[in-house]
Amino acid sequence: MTQEIDREKRDFMRASALAGGGLLLSGPVVLFAANGQPGTIRSRGYAAVDTSGKLVPWTFERRPVGDDDILIDIKYASICHSDIHQMRGHWGPQQYPQVPGHEIVGVVTAVGKNVTKFKVGDRAGVGCMVDSCLDCEHCEIDQEQYCPETTFTYGYPMASSPTGISQGGYSNNIVVRDHFAVHIPETISLQEAAPLLCAGITTYSPLMRADVGKGTKVGVAGIGGLGHMAIKLAVSRGAEVHAFTTSPSKVDDIRGFGVEHVTVVDDPKALAAHAGTLDYMISTIPVQYDVAAYASVVRPYGAFTQVGMPERFELTINSIALSIARVNFNVSLIGGMKETQEVVDYCASNGVLPEIQLIKAGQINDAWDKVVNKQARYRYVIDAATF
Amino acid sequence: MTQEIDREKRDFMRASALAGGGLLLSGPVVLFAANGQPGTIRSRGYAAVDTSGKLVPWTFERRPVGDDDILIDIKYASICHSDIHQMRGHWGPQQYPQVPGHEIVGVVTAVGKNVTKFKVGDRAGVGCMVDSCLDCEHCEIDQEQYCPETTFTYGYPMASSPTGISQGGYSNNIVVRDHFAVHIPETISLQEAAPLLCAGITTYSPLMRADVGKGTKVGVAGIGGLGHMAIKLAVSRGAEVHAFTTSPSKVDDIRGFGVEHVTVVDDPKALAAHAGTLDYMISTIPVQYDVAAYASVVRPYGAFTQVGMPERFELTINSIALSIARVNFNVSLIGGMKETQEVVDYCASNGVLPEIQLIKAGQINDAWDKVVNKQARYRYVIDAATF
Repeated sequence: MTQEIDREKRDFMRASALAGGGLLLSGPVVLFAANGQPGTIRSRGYAAVDTSGKLVPWTFERRPVGDDDILIDIKYASICHSDIHQMRGHWGPQQYPQVPGHEIVGVVTAVGKNVTKFKVGDRAGVGCMVDSCLDCEHCEIDQEQYCPETTFTYGYPMASSPTGISQGGYSNNIVVRDHFAVHIPETISLQEAAPLLCAGITTYSPLMRADVGKGTKVGVAGIGGLGHMAIKLAVSRGAEVHAFTTSPSKVDDIRGFGVEHVTVVDDPKALAAHAGTLDYMISTIPVQYDVAAYASVVRPYGAFTQVGMPERFELTINSIALSIARVNFNVSLIGGMKETQEVVDYCASNGVLPEIQLIKAGQINDAWDKVVNKQARYRYVIDAATF
Repeated sequence: MTQEIDREKRDFMRASALAGGGLLLSGPVVLFAANGQPGTIRSRGYAAVDTSGKLVPWTFERRPVGDDDILIDIKYASICHSDIHQMRGHWGPQQYPQVPGHEIVGVVTAVGKNVTKFKVGDRAGVGCMVDSCLDCEHCEIDQEQYCPETTFTYGYPMASSPTGISQGGYSNNIVVRDHFAVHIPETISLQEAAPLLCAGITTYSPLMRADVGKGTKVGVAGIGGLGHMAIKLAVSRGAEVHAFTTSPSKVDDIRGFGVEHVTVVDDPKALAAHAGTLDYMISTIPVQYDVAAYASVVRPYGAFTQVGMPERFELTINSIALSIARVNFNVSLIGGMKETQEVVDYCASNGVLPEIQLIKAGQINDAWDKVVNKQARYRYVIDAATF
């Protein structure tokens, strides 16, 4: 019998006291919660408990594996600046405890009865979303991230979750609807695949929409986790990449990524020398900054895409400066599931790999400070065996 | 002998004591300033003297009519929200006294010796610019408004001006380089032509760039001086226009302009009902507002053009909301001189006329209050004979 998230069935199952009868299991999984609710999955992770953003070890329950769900034994989860913003309340009040993490990879250890996309033992990844309606105009064109009912991977109301909200990937397992997991090819290591689930797709999607490639001059502003992936993706497409960083210490790395043109932006005036020279720019800067000064580096009537999300999601733009730049400003939010599979496959096939630093769970808080202080080089990946 | 702005020549001319020898004059003009500087033009106008923005009568000097200049006897000048913003210091500190006004029409009363574009007696208009380099990449493609050396019509440093800054059109005359004046066809009244010099060109330029016409659904947000011109222009092009106003009292007027779809935005939520329905939107709202809420009315990957300029030129955009809208946001600044002539000719030929209210100089301060309070219907035009 399959575990269901529906309350009536849950009650029935409680009475039946069945443990994973309809599930294909690869190994021992705690299928009963401490409170005795049948089928819930016990998970160990690191959670924020208040806006301090300091994470602490936490054991919690995930929903039972439903007919359309898979259970993933998480191997690695990487750290995104978004994790920090959301846990610290920069994007609005949060429910705590909350487990962040939306760059998640592991191995499938159970599948629901309707699942054909995955089988036990498959390598799988989960990104920023874990559910949507799959029926609206956005879902129909594979842009589930814009569905009004999208459940993002952590902190979103989720009736099926024993904690009431979605809980992310800084943990040892996750239950997710199969549609919202992607396959991780054997040609890429799991730890290198993890950052593709957010940093990869978030930069890949707008770069592909902008059709960057041979003959295009592409700017990348903010060279952290997302920025260094934007560089590597654009370079791999044959574009002439121009990087803009506030960290002189990153210049050599950036050249190593295949970028000839690196500008250290110690002052917005440093951008003026490049006014109107690029075809397109993507900015990963996740804080308030002088958008128009960066946009002015793009040629008139070119486009500038923001992917970094600042505090309160507020970006203040100087209207007169943007008018002089004559640049189209837009904001892109991750990418759909089809495109997420695409970027993982693309990176695996083309050797477009993030620069990672493997850490243990106990190092997360220190790593967060380093992300904020621009010391990450360039993505911290947590070994989930240490949760 | 022609009057020159160059100091050496000015000194020579002072010695020569010639009064307008090389100028073709249509009538008596005060060619000597009170301080005895030869050739300067005495002008009567209304000036702001501090950030209160209260205007007072003021007599001042304009530069002598140079070889490439024309002297215009101003007949009408209309009131733009920009006048108020700038005089009140909303866009930065100002030099006072300063005469606002950049919607200026009148009759040419003198031309410099190099001028072939105009002759004495011609009807002429001046908009937001009075000079630029005419040599840079922007000027070469008729976008003088983006030239780094553009002198805007009031409050800009101008070495040739006896007051040190450009002085605008709330006055009885103006001296301007011929390139920065346009012809006013006989088929339009001077008072109806005045608002075209800013409100007309500022909306015409982006509407033409967006290629609005039959088959396009165009939104106009903020139905004041600029907004009502945007409506009339888009309607005249055959577009299906959707108007968004915060003033229920304007609804009937707007329908009278040929708009079937009028939404009163008493709350940004009123916009949600129209999400993703339009091809393009232009916003004339000259204050901080919820840009992304309006932009979300445009279909994904459509464009949204801001032309209203808020205080400090600051527009705060919600990045997540703009990402969900997937709309290209841009800002457009007036238009070039060639296009300014084009909009005046277009409006004259097609009967696209602003709604105007004729006022006397003494009513300016009251009119400004009404503009701020959204009571203008829709452009105040000052009778320059009353200065």
